[in-house]
Amino acid sequence: MTATPFRHPFTIPFHEVDAAGVLFFGHLFSHYHEAWEALLESIGHPLPALLEAGEVALPIAHAEADFHRPIRHGERLCMELRVEEIGERRFTLEGRCVDEGGQPRATLRSVHVAVAASGGPAALPPALRQALEGVG
Amino acid sequence: MTATPFRHPFTIPFHEVDAAGVLFFGHLFSHYHEAWEALLESIGHPLPALLEAGEVALPIAHAEADFHRPIRHGERLCMELRVEEIGERRFTLEGRCVDEGGQPRATLRSVHVAVAASGGPAALPPALRQALEGVG
Amino acid sequence: MTATPFRHPFTIPFHEVDAAGVLFFGHLFSHYHEAWEALLESIGHPLPALLEAGEVALPIAHAEADFHRPIRHGERLCMELRVEEIGERRFTLEGRCVDEGGQPRATLRSVHVAVAASGGPAALPPALRQALEGVG
Amino acid sequence: MTATPFRHPFTIPFHEVDAAGVLFFGHLFSHYHEAWEALLESIGHPLPALLEAGEVALPIAHAEADFHRPIRHGERLCMELRVEEIGERRFTLEGRCVDEGGQPRATLRSVHVAVAASGGPAALPPALRQALEGVG
Repeated sequence: MTATPFRHPFTIPFHEVDAAGVLFFGHLFSHYHEAWEALLESIGHPLPALLEAGEVALPIAHAEADFHRPIRHGERLCMELRVEEIGERRFTLEGRCVDEGGQPRATLRSVHVAVAASGGPAALPPALRQALEGVG
Repeated sequence: MTATPFRHPFTIPFHEVDAAGVLFFGHLFSHYHEAWEALLESIGHPLPALLEAGEVALPIAHAEADFHRPIRHGERLCMELRVEEIGERRFTLEGRCVDEGGQPRATLRSVHVAVAASGGPAALPPALRQALEGVG
Repeated sequence: MTATPFRHPFTIPFHEVDAAGVLFFGHLFSHYHEAWEALLESIGHPLPALLEAGEVALPIAHAEADFHRPIRHGERLCMELRVEEIGERRFTLEGRCVDEGGQPRATLRSVHVAVAASGGPAALPPALRQALEGVG
Repeated sequence: MTATPFRHPFTIPFHEVDAAGVLFFGHLFSHYHEAWEALLESIGHPLPALLEAGEVALPIAHAEADFHRPIRHGERLCMELRVEEIGERRFTLEGRCVDEGGQPRATLRSVHVAVAASGGPAALPPALRQALEGVG
């Protein structure tokens, strides 16, 4: 795997701030997933088409995040996404959320497992696996 | 239609407050819809079953809200829901959001239209229509 | 006021779809507000700075939307925002949500009222008012 | 610490389902935090009052979740919350999300750190610490 992550810029909107005046931690998982959707689109495997094909789903079995410093309304951030590990039936993504000064603000990780339409285990579609191996 | 609305209590959580320190207006539509789901359940027509049956969907064609006073973190409110008008293919809901002192804090309204699985026009299922006529 | 609206492109993410398989109507108000924040930034009055200054807040007194056709996961849309009317203490925004083919998919409207830090009535800051008068 | 967790029931609403037809994983962190707010209220330390007092904030430094099986629209779940570990400046919460049949559906964990209004390190208020030590 190469050293260049997929980069997804975003800005913290008014409605994602919580009663403590900073980004609600849970919302960062939404931005992380939006970055993942943009990554899939960029490698020619858009998620809407994958879901519509209906062969395989990629539910998240594990997700975690470390928050280094509070994130505020209006901040411009970038989610740098890498495929950390990829196997026959599962892969691990890692996201580094950095600010405009290049400071890391949060680190996220998720494990995705291929599941057949029947609900049983499935292999990652080979073309998708190959495309993901080229990321980050 | 009778004078008693369906009552759905809820509390404003930490994560629904915005950068101005009050409830983000858009989130009140989520509470309104949760009240609507609770109403459907209470009259024996739970929304999950309706969607699973797949005969008819009830998309929202119009929604509006008037906000009387800012709503804060931790406030206990009640959504009082009435069926304002009901026809063969559509109905109008109205929600009065009141606080513990009985003060109205917001008023919401939505128009729902019956649509067939094909996407074309549909009639409201007669049993659902009859049940809704008994509300509020 | 001129005829050119402020244009804010966005894409419907995976997590904004509801149990009926289309965009949950309430989420369109979030995109609408993000477009409004982008507009404020573009005219030199970013909302975070306005809130931090603390002189005046602009709560939403009324919001409404008409939904013309269901919106799906992955759709690329554009929110076209205009300042419809502006007075000393309040203004009305209108948003036309159009798809890539130029078809209108939803129309939104909101009324914003200037409120002093004390909670009482306030006038719109003259510089902001003038800047808004130049939009749409 | 005792063996009885704090129990917070909730139902999955229409608008939290994603384009794959199941609960969007990120939303479970919102329910988890709502359970945490209910716990704080139940031990006499409601979060709104804590935030208003302004002495100390309790930002989340780490959050994680394991998802055992997909969660669907309309499911009635219970978040069972325990204080797993508590120190002078930080504590760890654990949530077991179980369904009506008692099956675990997800497990969540978060680390909260006391921070002074100045942004620097702080000790947990003794009364809060003592109250938390009595939970789960």
